Amino acid sequence: MKLTAKAARARTGLGPAPAVVLVRPQLGENVGQVARAMLNFGLSDLRLVRPRFGWPNAKAVAAAAGAHEVLNRMRVHDELAAATADLHLVYATTARERGLDKPVVTAEEAGRRARAAEGEGLRVGYLFGPERTGLDNAELARADALLTIPLNPAFSSLNLAQAVLLCGYEWFRAGDRTPSERRPAGRDRPATRGELDAFLDWLLAALDETGFFRSPQRRESLVRQIEAMCARHHPTVSELNLLFGILKQLRRGGPPTAGTGRTGS
Amino acid sequence: MKLTAKAARARTGLGPAPAVVLVRPQLGENVGQVARAMLNFGLSDLRLVRPRFGWPNAKAVAAAAGAHEVLNRMRVHDELAAATADLHLVYATTARERGLDKPVVTAEEAGRRARAAEGEGLRVGYLFGPERTGLDNAELARADALLTIPLNPAFSSLNLAQAVLLCGYEWFRAGDRTPSERRPAGRDRPATRGELDAFLDWLLAALDETGFFRSPQRRESLVRQIEAMCARHHPTVSELNLLFGILKQLRRGGPPTAGTGRTGS
Repeated sequence: MKLTAKAARARTGLGPAPAVVLVRPQLGENVGQVARAMLNFGLSDLRLVRPRFGWPNAKAVAAAAGAHEVLNRMRVHDELAAATADLHLVYATTARERGLDKPVVTAEEAGRRARAAEGEGLRVGYLFGPERTGLDNAELARADALLTIPLNPAFSSLNLAQAVLLCGYEWFRAGDRTPSERRPAGRDRPATRGELDAFLDWLLAALDETGFFRSPQRRESLVRQIEAMCARHHPTVSELNLLFGILKQLRRGGPPTAGTGRTGS
Repeated sequence: MKLTAKAARARTGLGPAPAVVLVRPQLGENVGQVARAMLNFGLSDLRLVRPRFGWPNAKAVAAAAGAHEVLNRMRVHDELAAATADLHLVYATTARERGLDKPVVTAEEAGRRARAAEGEGLRVGYLFGPERTGLDNAELARADALLTIPLNPAFSSLNLAQAVLLCGYEWFRAGDRTPSERRPAGRDRPATRGELDAFLDWLLAALDETGFFRSPQRRESLVRQIEAMCARHHPTVSELNLLFGILKQLRRGGPPTAGTGRTGS
């Protein structure tokens, strides 16, 4: 079953996404892993140029587990020119600066620009070279820009699927609206200032009764510390009730030694 | 050979970095792949809690190819509490919202906060659960925050090493100063406005001589288009020289038909 681009997009639930072009890939299983990495971020347009293995390829299919829609749509080309003919903006990934007279962008910047171009109806592609050697200079020269992924300079050995994963991630992130922090909704809410004050009033009265503060000077300083701690952590209503329960229990339920200062007992 | 934390940091050339804690990992080779993914972004403090395989593990060592310094430093613990005892800030990764009353941050936000905490001398850790099930609720409850990686909701099956790779990438990126675009330095420079004008003057004169514009109205409009194209692309000095050479050659070297309007021949 072949999925059209539109059907594949409908399946992933996302809009247009960049094509991934693997130039002379050496290992079939890498193609399967690339298909999975792509689909994780909503990319489904995979193109091969002169793969060094036969196609269809059993290892690729096995490694693609779950991402078969990408392989089903995939096209194999004899020439890079044919694989990129319909693309308006092409990034060539490279691990090293090659001394080419061409701008070099990060994966993050490429993701942002790809989204912007797609917003104008343009088609974008990312080129990846053979596993061992990368793209050659003639292939790099035809791209609009080079793309390098910032890495630990002392250890920078990404495999092909990982490089695709990070480029896909940056493209996805550039259009993703997940808030950087979400707080669980509904079930609980921060205590109001009035609820905090009621808690503090009870606590200070209990501490006064038990002689915790010892002197007025010490009391002033400790009350300030207690209030600051309460403000800094700003407990929720449930947390305040939990604390209330704990403190009341400790106040009431200590070992029945004489002279604990308990009132009303 | 065991590397100390300090020696490993010196080796990677980076400052302090988060610990990665794998809780009950199921497959030895994943530990090796995690070690590689970590070192790509300068992380080298790996901790295992109750692995489901024996240790040392030949598959892990084979999969770590090149990242042995991470395995050499690694520690195996019986309890999560022991593996996290020295950490000040702990993120628990999870693929799904678990309905826990706890903030959920993106990998990007976690990376930023980890860098900030490390800047204050605090130690940070990322927890990852077993490959099949993820962390359980008791394990998640003890973390400072949950961490989820935004993914294509229709296909969100990251493997363990990929999840570590993306968390490591975001931590690295939060401290990375690679400019989003670099332009090759030195060898070439944009043409000055004067150089552009000299080129345009030559071009317009040549076009006038060959009768390209046909009418003054047409000339005005076409000159504006030519000037706009030149401004939009703003060629470099070498490009301008290349264009000059091409245009002069075409003007001079056409087939020797009569009446080409060439002057001085």
